[in-house]
Amino acid sequence: MSTIQNAHEAIPKTMRAAVMPQPFDIVIEERNVPEASGDEVLVKIMAVGICGSDIHYYEHGRIGPYVVEKPIILGHECAGIVAAVGDKVTRFKVGDRVAVEPGITCGRCDHCKSGRYNLCADVQFLATPPVDGAFVQYIKHREDFLFPIPDGMSFETAALIEPFSVGIHAAKRAGIKPGETVAIIGMGPVGLMAVVAAKAFGAGKIIVSDMEPVRLKAAIKLGAHHALDASKQDAAEVIKDLTGGKGADVAFETAGHPHALKTALRSLCRGGRLSIVGLPPQEEIPVNVPSIADNEIDIYGVFRYANTYAQGITFISSGIADTDIMITDRYPLEQTKEAMERARTNKSGSLKVVVYPNGM
Amino acid sequence: MSTIQNAHEAIPKTMRAAVMPQPFDIVIEERNVPEASGDEVLVKIMAVGICGSDIHYYEHGRIGPYVVEKPIILGHECAGIVAAVGDKVTRFKVGDRVAVEPGITCGRCDHCKSGRYNLCADVQFLATPPVDGAFVQYIKHREDFLFPIPDGMSFETAALIEPFSVGIHAAKRAGIKPGETVAIIGMGPVGLMAVVAAKAFGAGKIIVSDMEPVRLKAAIKLGAHHALDASKQDAAEVIKDLTGGKGADVAFETAGHPHALKTALRSLCRGGRLSIVGLPPQEEIPVNVPSIADNEIDIYGVFRYANTYAQGITFISSGIADTDIMITDRYPLEQTKEAMERARTNKSGSLKVVVYPNGM
Amino acid sequence: MSTIQNAHEAIPKTMRAAVMPQPFDIVIEERNVPEASGDEVLVKIMAVGICGSDIHYYEHGRIGPYVVEKPIILGHECAGIVAAVGDKVTRFKVGDRVAVEPGITCGRCDHCKSGRYNLCADVQFLATPPVDGAFVQYIKHREDFLFPIPDGMSFETAALIEPFSVGIHAAKRAGIKPGETVAIIGMGPVGLMAVVAAKAFGAGKIIVSDMEPVRLKAAIKLGAHHALDASKQDAAEVIKDLTGGKGADVAFETAGHPHALKTALRSLCRGGRLSIVGLPPQEEIPVNVPSIADNEIDIYGVFRYANTYAQGITFISSGIADTDIMITDRYPLEQTKEAMERARTNKSGSLKVVVYPNGM
Amino acid sequence: MSTIQNAHEAIPKTMRAAVMPQPFDIVIEERNVPEASGDEVLVKIMAVGICGSDIHYYEHGRIGPYVVEKPIILGHECAGIVAAVGDKVTRFKVGDRVAVEPGITCGRCDHCKSGRYNLCADVQFLATPPVDGAFVQYIKHREDFLFPIPDGMSFETAALIEPFSVGIHAAKRAGIKPGETVAIIGMGPVGLMAVVAAKAFGAGKIIVSDMEPVRLKAAIKLGAHHALDASKQDAAEVIKDLTGGKGADVAFETAGHPHALKTALRSLCRGGRLSIVGLPPQEEIPVNVPSIADNEIDIYGVFRYANTYAQGITFISSGIADTDIMITDRYPLEQTKEAMERARTNKSGSLKVVVYPNGM
Repeated sequence: MSTIQNAHEAIPKTMRAAVMPQPFDIVIEERNVPEASGDEVLVKIMAVGICGSDIHYYEHGRIGPYVVEKPIILGHECAGIVAAVGDKVTRFKVGDRVAVEPGITCGRCDHCKSGRYNLCADVQFLATPPVDGAFVQYIKHREDFLFPIPDGMSFETAALIEPFSVGIHAAKRAGIKPGETVAIIGMGPVGLMAVVAAKAFGAGKIIVSDMEPVRLKAAIKLGAHHALDASKQDAAEVIKDLTGGKGADVAFETAGHPHALKTALRSLCRGGRLSIVGLPPQEEIPVNVPSIADNEIDIYGVFRYANTYAQGITFISSGIADTDIMITDRYPLEQTKEAMERARTNKSGSLKVVVYPNGM
Repeated sequence: MSTIQNAHEAIPKTMRAAVMPQPFDIVIEERNVPEASGDEVLVKIMAVGICGSDIHYYEHGRIGPYVVEKPIILGHECAGIVAAVGDKVTRFKVGDRVAVEPGITCGRCDHCKSGRYNLCADVQFLATPPVDGAFVQYIKHREDFLFPIPDGMSFETAALIEPFSVGIHAAKRAGIKPGETVAIIGMGPVGLMAVVAAKAFGAGKIIVSDMEPVRLKAAIKLGAHHALDASKQDAAEVIKDLTGGKGADVAFETAGHPHALKTALRSLCRGGRLSIVGLPPQEEIPVNVPSIADNEIDIYGVFRYANTYAQGITFISSGIADTDIMITDRYPLEQTKEAMERARTNKSGSLKVVVYPNGM
Repeated sequence: MSTIQNAHEAIPKTMRAAVMPQPFDIVIEERNVPEASGDEVLVKIMAVGICGSDIHYYEHGRIGPYVVEKPIILGHECAGIVAAVGDKVTRFKVGDRVAVEPGITCGRCDHCKSGRYNLCADVQFLATPPVDGAFVQYIKHREDFLFPIPDGMSFETAALIEPFSVGIHAAKRAGIKPGETVAIIGMGPVGLMAVVAAKAFGAGKIIVSDMEPVRLKAAIKLGAHHALDASKQDAAEVIKDLTGGKGADVAFETAGHPHALKTALRSLCRGGRLSIVGLPPQEEIPVNVPSIADNEIDIYGVFRYANTYAQGITFISSGIADTDIMITDRYPLEQTKEAMERARTNKSGSLKVVVYPNGM
Repeated sequence: MSTIQNAHEAIPKTMRAAVMPQPFDIVIEERNVPEASGDEVLVKIMAVGICGSDIHYYEHGRIGPYVVEKPIILGHECAGIVAAVGDKVTRFKVGDRVAVEPGITCGRCDHCKSGRYNLCADVQFLATPPVDGAFVQYIKHREDFLFPIPDGMSFETAALIEPFSVGIHAAKRAGIKPGETVAIIGMGPVGLMAVVAAKAFGAGKIIVSDMEPVRLKAAIKLGAHHALDASKQDAAEVIKDLTGGKGADVAFETAGHPHALKTALRSLCRGGRLSIVGLPPQEEIPVNVPSIADNEIDIYGVFRYANTYAQGITFISSGIADTDIMITDRYPLEQTKEAMERARTNKSGSLKVVVYPNGM
């Protein structure tokens, strides 16, 4: 568990970083501590969650068009302590505890100006090549993408705001209305945090499916009303049964799997809405298009998130769910490779694996 | 061209109807003229457009779950003159000229009460088995699904409000905003009327594609800015070029064809929106799902329409487009079979084929 | 507390009704039990809450354009047991326990068809002249305005769904988003149920104000985070303080008082939204119009509700709040006059006064 | 009429500026030409429209909280030619013709990030104290608030995009849907450009009122269907008549006058929507609040605009209206004082008065 260190301590010149020179390889290197100027803040990173995308880069060296072409520091779900501030920083002071929203957007393109900054083409996103990430002791970050966290919130919980944001954004995109029934297919970390998001949006009934018992159990603990084992039952059929034959008002596909997508679509009521969160490895997936037209389904692609961090911190602070159960494995920075291996090989046991760059 | 007859004339006891006893067969029969009671209106049908769904029933005897199990009267795009009114009718009097919205909904289910009455499970829709349609001299219809048309609007134009409504609904579903670029893939009658709808919604640039020159020419006459021959060029590529590389804000797929769907998706900008109007014959179609998520595409299924008739009449009355060019072929009721054959075999020449049950 | 009686018992020919022949006068009369036909249901009324509008008719004999011109039965917040069903009823059977949505709308006008049936000009609303209300043993009601309630929900709680619906509708109109701060000015029964609605919509912080301590206490019990005594402090100022100077995202004015409206407007953040629920007696009220433009405030008038009952029952069933505390006074039908007097004279003590037409 | 000058000409060291040292006084001074660095562009100002706010500062030295405390350069409706670009500018090159969106926002606050950058507290807005405006030969401006205009668009038309933006924003805020009836009360320049905006949004019927014949004539030329002289008739009554008793779907109040606001509210249909654009001098205005609740009116405050410039240029370029009629008076920079006097004293004759800082 992280402990708050004295942030006013002297900032070192150099720091340790967990660098990936090539797939399946992570080495600890000494790097210069960056300098924060202007509206930048130097953040001492206290906790970093490992995301599926980190694992994907670790295994494949690329995700779609994003290719790792030189050694990269992974990790983007992070939180820490303000260690220094640039001369134009007005929102933070040294010692403040913050969650880090990892994508820095331009603020000047049409997408940014119309409230969809997650679509900004010029985003600098932690751990998306060629931008380095957070498996490191310090990063500098623009102040408007840092969010204060309350004293009672641990850093690893604050790091969870990132996957939580994906769930919140999926909920916003699908327009979950209070009292509605929400089906969430896939209970990886994003799916699990989406359960919490659906709860925060007032969902009346949350039904989830996955094939790993540990995840189904976690979903129930986080607020799901029904957890279906997709290896044993046809989740779409059961969802219809649980809704008196009507189907779910909203479904999320978070598994990135053709079968999960089919289940999500089939689970919907007429006029239902689907958020597609998961990225399937195949480029083309068979979809029942006539049923989309006949039933006037809405489908919403979900790419990262926008304007979710303050909301996410509010939700978690209110005690909406015991998100501590998400953190199953903890490693110091020096064991980042072990952490990555744990995350990628223990899907039936681990939920979120966390790395602590400045001591556990 | 229809002429207004004296609607106060005596209503006959019987009438002629074009009945389809089985696929590829249409016979003229004598039927009793229905009686309008309560909130029903007896409408003397003056013009009926032939829709792709009529042809589909004519060829296959079914559309998906809707099966023709006994002789049926087809035709649902219609307009006429009020010939008699039930005792509770307050909106119309004998002699009024009306467009007929063909689906009568319950007004009492959740879909009806929330403004999406097109999803009503209890709808009675003209020419959808087992409900008879409008290839007949008189029908009775609930008054709230009749709409007065101005004197200057012909009955065949009023019949076009039906396919126009599909285009309007697609425009609403996709939320076309003024000034946006709209790509419409497929220039059958619905696609063509969707061009007019996009224009009514203030689209800044309307780009269409099809493979039939006659349709592309019609699209330009109706207001499209660019008409692409999909047999000669990659429409999605050209759309990107015509938008400075950005892509269309909105696309409609109206062709019901896997390739058209692929083109529609590829033609979109990041954050773009797609209305799926066409019903492909295949149940499953390969779709580039990762691109939907990555680009945060919205996809909206479109099933018929709701609350479009008054709007459609307003648009056409304002002279927004010369929709007369849509009517390419005219037949009396006695030649309904010839009309159907013309519609199904002359896609390279005919746009809308119209049947006139009470004289041309 | 109501007890469920055997609904299969014989239906009597006549029944008792609490009739108001003129203001300040209520007499018990014998009336014929109505007969349910077609899609109508005969409901044995088990509990009726007294609303401010009942009291207003009782005191003034009118509300704005609605004038009591002949003896009327008041009461419209009610619930009961299905005692008989018309031959077209499909949703209910004798013995079912139901909440009654009091306004029966036409289902055929533009407002009804577009999802805003609360604006239907042809509504028949219980206890709005000349329509009789629910201070009576049986009423007949169209089945689509009855909603099944779970076994565990008492009839007086089910009657609360009516004022709750106003709060839900105000929340929908203002578009409360999860995590937002909501200020509710006025803690009469509608204001109190609006606290529960704001909670159901995921409000992050609910701040209320009133001048009656009993109401402020009830608000806290129902889920308000801060309850301000408007007789002792400037609520708008305190709301600014409680939100770090920003102001509330959403405010409801439920008191129908010029000062309350001013407070509600002043309490808002820039870009904030205001639902006007309360009806002030004055026709014209001074409003700071420049501040509405400068701060881009949205103001939403709230008239009754639409599509709220199923949602309301879901919320209450989930145990979202202990709404039992709302019921402070109980009377048999014979003492309806006493109940009315209690409700109108004990605002510092009573919250909701309930009448039980078929035994307490 | 402006002529395009050779923008590659040498940039002078100094320039002329029309400075207001105090109310009712404007003097021509020599100033240094600013230097554009980073993402800034130096714009040679070719045309500047005079706005009501310029006149208000000229007469009163303040608008609400914005006080002129030192000599200021007024003028913010402007367009010109790119004369030089900072080293980070990517969108423009010297010689490009541009419309200037006058408010530069931070891009980093909650309002900016959620698409409502017009509410940004840190905006730097031309000619809003203490920021200097555009009655000057050159200004520097951040590139993302400049918009390319087509060759065929004159600079004075491009300057009109500013008041047009207010109309577009009012139309967006009120959510004008195609075919709707829009009433616009007040036909000053903003009201007139709002006519064009309503047309661009597909309004089916546009009804306007004012008391100046010259403005009513201009409204008709720009696309209004009915122009009512409010000095001779009760505009709200006539609007009801023109809509078959129903009322307008949407109204704009642009006059900033209590009576106009009353008219706008009274002209609305049930469920109608009102955009408040005009700023009345009084702080408090009597408003019929019960009618807002009873009729479920939406009221939207309108403060400037966001994301309107590209759209506005698209609309005007499409030839939607002959906006040239808006420009009634033209002055060189040296006669800025005369121009201001003309604008403030000739409301019955002038529509838009334009100043040309670099030759007419």
